[in-house]
Amino acid sequence: MTMTPTVKAILANYESDNPGVKANLARILMQGRLGGTGKLVILPVDQGFEHGPARSFAVNAPAYDPHYHFQLAIDAGLSAYAAPLGMLEAGAGTFAGQIPTILKVNSSNSWATGVNQAVTGGVDDALRLGCSAIGFTIYPGADDVFDMMEEIKEMRAEAASVGIATVIWSYPRGGKLSKEGELALDVGAYAAHMAALLGAHIIKVKLPTSHVEQKDAAKSYEGQDFSSQASRVKHVVQSCFAGRRLVVFSGGAAKGSDAVYQDARDIRDGGGNGSIIGRNTFQRPRDEALAMLDKIVGIYKGEEA
Amino acid sequence: MTMTPTVKAILANYESDNPGVKANLARILMQGRLGGTGKLVILPVDQGFEHGPARSFAVNAPAYDPHYHFQLAIDAGLSAYAAPLGMLEAGAGTFAGQIPTILKVNSSNSWATGVNQAVTGGVDDALRLGCSAIGFTIYPGADDVFDMMEEIKEMRAEAASVGIATVIWSYPRGGKLSKEGELALDVGAYAAHMAALLGAHIIKVKLPTSHVEQKDAAKSYEGQDFSSQASRVKHVVQSCFAGRRLVVFSGGAAKGSDAVYQDARDIRDGGGNGSIIGRNTFQRPRDEALAMLDKIVGIYKGEEA
Amino acid sequence: MTMTPTVKAILANYESDNPGVKANLARILMQGRLGGTGKLVILPVDQGFEHGPARSFAVNAPAYDPHYHFQLAIDAGLSAYAAPLGMLEAGAGTFAGQIPTILKVNSSNSWATGVNQAVTGGVDDALRLGCSAIGFTIYPGADDVFDMMEEIKEMRAEAASVGIATVIWSYPRGGKLSKEGELALDVGAYAAHMAALLGAHIIKVKLPTSHVEQKDAAKSYEGQDFSSQASRVKHVVQSCFAGRRLVVFSGGAAKGSDAVYQDARDIRDGGGNGSIIGRNTFQRPRDEALAMLDKIVGIYKGEEA
Amino acid sequence: MTMTPTVKAILANYESDNPGVKANLARILMQGRLGGTGKLVILPVDQGFEHGPARSFAVNAPAYDPHYHFQLAIDAGLSAYAAPLGMLEAGAGTFAGQIPTILKVNSSNSWATGVNQAVTGGVDDALRLGCSAIGFTIYPGADDVFDMMEEIKEMRAEAASVGIATVIWSYPRGGKLSKEGELALDVGAYAAHMAALLGAHIIKVKLPTSHVEQKDAAKSYEGQDFSSQASRVKHVVQSCFAGRRLVVFSGGAAKGSDAVYQDARDIRDGGGNGSIIGRNTFQRPRDEALAMLDKIVGIYKGEEA
Amino acid sequence: MTMTPTVKAILANYESDNPGVKANLARILMQGRLGGTGKLVILPVDQGFEHGPARSFAVNAPAYDPHYHFQLAIDAGLSAYAAPLGMLEAGAGTFAGQIPTILKVNSSNSWATGVNQAVTGGVDDALRLGCSAIGFTIYPGADDVFDMMEEIKEMRAEAASVGIATVIWSYPRGGKLSKEGELALDVGAYAAHMAALLGAHIIKVKLPTSHVEQKDAAKSYEGQDFSSQASRVKHVVQSCFAGRRLVVFSGGAAKGSDAVYQDARDIRDGGGNGSIIGRNTFQRPRDEALAMLDKIVGIYKGEEA
Repeated sequence: MTMTPTVKAILANYESDNPGVKANLARILMQGRLGGTGKLVILPVDQGFEHGPARSFAVNAPAYDPHYHFQLAIDAGLSAYAAPLGMLEAGAGTFAGQIPTILKVNSSNSWATGVNQAVTGGVDDALRLGCSAIGFTIYPGADDVFDMMEEIKEMRAEAASVGIATVIWSYPRGGKLSKEGELALDVGAYAAHMAALLGAHIIKVKLPTSHVEQKDAAKSYEGQDFSSQASRVKHVVQSCFAGRRLVVFSGGAAKGSDAVYQDARDIRDGGGNGSIIGRNTFQRPRDEALAMLDKIVGIYKGEEA
Repeated sequence: MTMTPTVKAILANYESDNPGVKANLARILMQGRLGGTGKLVILPVDQGFEHGPARSFAVNAPAYDPHYHFQLAIDAGLSAYAAPLGMLEAGAGTFAGQIPTILKVNSSNSWATGVNQAVTGGVDDALRLGCSAIGFTIYPGADDVFDMMEEIKEMRAEAASVGIATVIWSYPRGGKLSKEGELALDVGAYAAHMAALLGAHIIKVKLPTSHVEQKDAAKSYEGQDFSSQASRVKHVVQSCFAGRRLVVFSGGAAKGSDAVYQDARDIRDGGGNGSIIGRNTFQRPRDEALAMLDKIVGIYKGEEA
Repeated sequence: MTMTPTVKAILANYESDNPGVKANLARILMQGRLGGTGKLVILPVDQGFEHGPARSFAVNAPAYDPHYHFQLAIDAGLSAYAAPLGMLEAGAGTFAGQIPTILKVNSSNSWATGVNQAVTGGVDDALRLGCSAIGFTIYPGADDVFDMMEEIKEMRAEAASVGIATVIWSYPRGGKLSKEGELALDVGAYAAHMAALLGAHIIKVKLPTSHVEQKDAAKSYEGQDFSSQASRVKHVVQSCFAGRRLVVFSGGAAKGSDAVYQDARDIRDGGGNGSIIGRNTFQRPRDEALAMLDKIVGIYKGEEA
Repeated sequence: MTMTPTVKAILANYESDNPGVKANLARILMQGRLGGTGKLVILPVDQGFEHGPARSFAVNAPAYDPHYHFQLAIDAGLSAYAAPLGMLEAGAGTFAGQIPTILKVNSSNSWATGVNQAVTGGVDDALRLGCSAIGFTIYPGADDVFDMMEEIKEMRAEAASVGIATVIWSYPRGGKLSKEGELALDVGAYAAHMAALLGAHIIKVKLPTSHVEQKDAAKSYEGQDFSSQASRVKHVVQSCFAGRRLVVFSGGAAKGSDAVYQDARDIRDGGGNGSIIGRNTFQRPRDEALAMLDKIVGIYKGEEA
Repeated sequence: MTMTPTVKAILANYESDNPGVKANLARILMQGRLGGTGKLVILPVDQGFEHGPARSFAVNAPAYDPHYHFQLAIDAGLSAYAAPLGMLEAGAGTFAGQIPTILKVNSSNSWATGVNQAVTGGVDDALRLGCSAIGFTIYPGADDVFDMMEEIKEMRAEAASVGIATVIWSYPRGGKLSKEGELALDVGAYAAHMAALLGAHIIKVKLPTSHVEQKDAAKSYEGQDFSSQASRVKHVVQSCFAGRRLVVFSGGAAKGSDAVYQDARDIRDGGGNGSIIGRNTFQRPRDEALAMLDKIVGIYKGEEA
C-alpha cells in the first residue's frame, strides 16, 4: 500500500524522532483495514495480568491461547496488538511480520497493595520480539507516580534511540483523586497532556465524563459546553499538543455493542485517532467480535454513520 | 534416546526462545525415566534455606549431605534437581553431566520479617555450574511482589540470552490474601498465569483447592464443577497459555504416600506436566523414597493406574 | 611443609571452586602450628569497629597498635588473622607473606541504629593487600538480612572468580528473634546452614546453647540429647553440608581461661574445625595470651586432653 | 544412561575447569552409541567454508541442506556435530537437545591470500545456539600463528568462564614448513602439544606420517619404531599431557572405506579418543555413510576387529 | 617457618609495591628448602612450547605428564614452578597450595617466523589458577621488542594491581644482534637492566660470557676483569638496581652436572639470587634430577662448597 498524505502529515509531527521510530509508527498507521487513514484500532490483551485469567478469558475459553489474539487482530484488520512479555513470546514467532506488536512493559494485578506497576519487559525484549512499540502505564495522582514517570523516562529514551515507539497508558488513580475524578474531563485532559510531555508517541486515555474535578481548573472550563462526548474528545486531542500526537481511547469494561459503536463515533467526530479495545472484543465469541470490529473499522473509515 | 514427537511439540511452543534455551528444556524433558514423555519430576532441595536444616533433614540424616540429593535424583531417574547455590557447588563437579540442575536463585527463611526473598545466586553462577535453568520465587499478593517481578524480569532476560531456561515458583502469599486464599483456585490459576506472563519456561504452583477467593472472579467460575482435583489442575494448565507452557505442581509438606500418589494421578489426568517433590522424598529413608518415586514415575508413564 | 592427606581431603570438598580458591584455603590450612591438621585458629580483630577502641584495647594498651595483632597471630602459630581494611592496611606491608589474612569487608558499630553492617572493604582491596579471604557478617533474623545476603552474593562471586575464599560470620540477631534465641541450637544450626547455602568456604558461628527457639523445629530435636556442648557442635557441623564445609566457632566475650579451653575441647570433640578467638586473647597481656593460645593449639592437636 | 567410570576418569583430568565445562564435555562423552566409552566420533561440516559448496556437496546433493548433517550425526549415533555459525543457525532450533554441537568460530576459504582464518562466531553465539563447545583452528608454522593463538587465548578464557568447552584444530601449515612436514610425526605431536598448552579441552590433529621434519628433533625419535600408525597415534596422545586431554584425529580428504576403517583401528589401538570425520561421510550417499559410521563406531566399541 | 631478616630485607626493596605483590614474593622466598635464605630455584617447563614435546620429554618419558613437574618441584623443595596455561591447568587443582606457581603468559615455538611470542595466558588466568606471578619473555634487540615491552607494560600493571608479581625473561635476540652478542656481558647486563626498568619483580637472564658486543660500551668495561663467571654475575646483579631486584639465571640446554653445579656456585658467589633450571632436571631420570637439585640447593644454602 502506498503511503498516504494523511499518514505523511502525522509522521511529520514527530519531527525530533529518528527514522526508526517514524518507520514503526508508519507500520502501525499503514496496517490493516485502517491503513493510510490516520485512524487506528489496537487490540490490547493485558487483562490476564490485571484481572487474572478466569475473569479475562473464561467467558470465551479459546482466548486462553495467546495465538487466539494475534489471529483475531489480524483477521479483523486491526492496526496493532499489545500484550505483556509472555503473551507475545508465545506467538511472536508464528505471527512475525503479520501485525505490528506493542510490548506492554509494565503491569499491575488484582492483588497489588500499592497503586503502581511492576516493570515486566524491556526495550531489548521489544527488539528481540520484533515489536514496533513499548507500552507503559502511568497513574497520575498516585503516590508513586514520580517513580513511574522516571521509569518511562528511561525506557522511552532507550526505546526511541533504537527506533521503537512509545505508547503511554495514562490512567489517573490513587492519591487524592476521587473515584469520580478519575474520569473527570480536566483530569483526563491533564493525564493525556502529561503523557505527551513525557514523550509518548501514542497516548492512550479513557473517555472522560463532563465532570471537572479540580477547583482551580473549573474557571478554565467556564462558558464552554462539554456535554457531548465528541467535544470532550476534542479537548483531549487539543491537550495532546493540538493534535500533534496520536491519541487513542480505551473502552473500559465490556458493555453493550451500541455503546461501543457510539464511543467510536464520538472519538472520530472529536478528532481522536482511534480505539484501543480489548475486553469488548475478546470476551465475545470470535464471530461476534469480528462483526463488532468490522463495524468499528467502518465507523472510523466513515463507511458507517 | 531419540527425541520424541511429544517433546518436539512441547519445544515448538517456546517459539520465541533461542536454541540454547530449547536445548536446556530438551535436556530436562529427555532426562531419566520420564525422558520423552513430556512429563517431568523435579527434586527440589531448598527446604534447608526455607525451614532450616533440622526440620528438613533430621528425620533422614544422610540428607544433610548435598551429594545425597544428586544421587537420589539420578538413581530415581528424575528429570532435574533444583537447589540453592551452596548445595549445587558442593556436588556440581562430582555429578557434572549426570542430571540437569536448576539453580534456585532466590530464597527466604523462617526468620524473614517481610514476604520477600533474597537473591542468592545469579545467571553467571548457573553457567559456571552447568545448570540448565534458574529458579525464582514470586509471592503474588505480597507488598514486595513488584520488586520480585522486576528482579526476575532482569534475571530471566539475562538467562534466556545465554540459553538458560527459567522456572518460576509462583506462591501467593502476603498482602490482602487470606490463608485460605493462598490455595484458592482463582488465586492459583492467576499466580500461574502471571508466571507465564513474566516469561517463565516452566511454572511451578501448588495444587489448588476448590475455594474461590476473589469476589470479582466468582462469576467466571459459576456453573463449572471444580470439585475434582484433576479439573482444577486442568484450569491451571489452561491458565498457562492453554498448555503452551510446562506446569509442575508441588506437593507441599510431607504426607502419606497414598495422598502423594493421588496427587500425581490428578496432575496427570488434568494435563499437568508433572511434580516437583522434595520433602515427601528426602524425608523418607532412601529405599522408601526410591520406591515412592518409582511409583510416581509409573503413574506419569501411565504404567500405574 | 608437605600437604597432608587431611588437608587434601578437605580441599576436595570444594569441588566447584577454582585452584585459586583452593590454594588460599590451603594456605590457611597449612599455616602455623596447626598446619596440616585440618584444624584452624583464627585471630579476629574487628572489635574496635564493633565496640570502639577503649572497650577493645584499653585493658591491654599495646593492642591499640595494628602491628601487635599481626605479631601475636604469627608468634602464636595461628592459621590466619582477620581485620577490617584500616587494620590490615596498617600492617599488611610489614607482615606480607607471614600469615594468611582475611579482610573483614563489612562492619557495624555501637552506634548503629539498624541491625545491619556497612560494606567497608572490597575484593580489590583483598587482592591488593594479599589477603587469602574476605569475611562478611550476616544477621539472620534481621529485617535487613535479605540486603546483607544480596551483598555477600555479589562479593562472594567476585572473590571466588579471582581465587579469594569467603568466610561468613553468621550471627542471628534482630527481627523476631529473642535474646535467648540468638544462641539457640536450632537457630545456630540454621544460621550455619544458610552461610553454607550462600557459598561460604569457611563458616563462623557462635557456640549454641541447648535451647530450641522455633516451635516448628522442636520436633526435629526430640529424643536426642544435646546437653553436651560437643553434641551441639556436631549438629552444627552436620548442618554445614555434613562436614563438607569448614566451620569455626567464636568464643564470644572475654571469659575465664578454663571456659575457653573447654570450648576448644568441645569444638574438637564435636568435629568442628577450630576457633576464631579475639577478645579472649588480645585483651590479656601478651604473655598470657600466648600461653592460652599455646594451650588451645595443643588441644586441637590432641596434645592436650 | 548412567555416567561410566571411564568418563568420570576423563572428566577428572580437567581439574581446573568449572562444572559447566565438565558438564558439556560429559554431554559429548555420554552421547550416542559411543556414550560412556571414552571414545568419540565428531561430524564436522566446515568444508563449505574451506573448499566451497560444490566441492563439498555436489557429489551428494542432499548435503547442501544443513538439516542433512544434523540428522546424519544423530542417526549415526555420533558424539557431536561441528559447523560454522550459519550452518548451526539453520538447524539449531529444530535439533535442539538432540546432539551436542560445536560452533566452529574461525574459518578460512580457498581464496585466502594469507595462512590465517577469520573469526566468524563467538562465545555468545555458542551460548545462544546451545552449543557444548567452540572450535578454533590454529596453523602452527604460519606467519600469523601468534595472532591466532592470541585470539583463541581470549575466546577460550571467555568460553571456559561460562561453561563452554574448547576444541582446537591444530593444523601445521605455512611459514617454513615443507608440504611433507605438515604431516610429519614431530610436527603433528608438537602441534597437538601446543593446542594442549593453549588450554584446549579437545585436541584435533591429523594422523601423522613417520617422517620427522625438524633436524633438532630427530635425535629424540632415534631408536624408536614409528612405522605403525598406532605407534604414531600413541606418541601424539603422549604429547597431549600423557593422555590427560582428549585427542581426536581427522581423516583428511575422502578416501576408500578400508583406509578409513584402518585409521579408526589405529587410533583406537594407539589410545586416541576418536575420529572427526567429515568428507568421508557426507560425500557418500546417506546409506553408505551410515554403514561406514556404523562400522567405525563398532571399531571404537571393540565390536569390530 | 618464620620470616627471616634476609627475606624481609629483600621485600623492603619492593617499596612501591602493594602488600599483595610482597606476599606473593614472600611465598616464593619462604618456600621449600631455600625458604628464608633469599635464594631461589625455580623449575620452568615451557620447553614443550619452545622446542616441542619430543625434544623436551622423550628422553624421560614420565615428564610428558604435567603432574610430574609439580611433584618434582615439590619433592626437590624448590621455590616455584613456572609453566604455560595448559600445563598449569592440568595440575593446579591437585597441587593447589603446595608450591607457588608462575604462569608463563607468552610463548614462542620452533616454527615461529618472527622473533616474538604469542600472549597465551592472562592475569585473570593467574588469579583463577592461584599463581603467585606471571612470567613474560622479552627479546631485547628484536624488531618487535617495543611491542613486547608494551604488552608486558600493560600486563605487569594489571598483575601488580591485583597482587600478582611479574617475572621477566629477558633474552637478547634478533635485529642487529650477533649470535655471540646474545650472550655478551654488556648485552646481558643491559637486558637485565631493561627488565628492571620495565618493573620486573624477578629478572631472569642467561649467564653471560665475557664478550662485550657493543663498541660504545667497551670503554665502560675497560680495566675491569670479567674473566670469572662470578664477576659477570655480580655485574648483572649490579645492573638490576644494585641488587634491589631479584635476579635468577637460566642454565640453558642440558649439560654435564659439574657444569651445572659450577654455574650455581658462580651465581651464589656473584650475589645472584638463584637458578631457573628446567631441562637439566626434567630431562634426567627423576632420581638423578632430585640428586642434582639437592646438590644445587646445598650450594645455595652454603652447605656445599
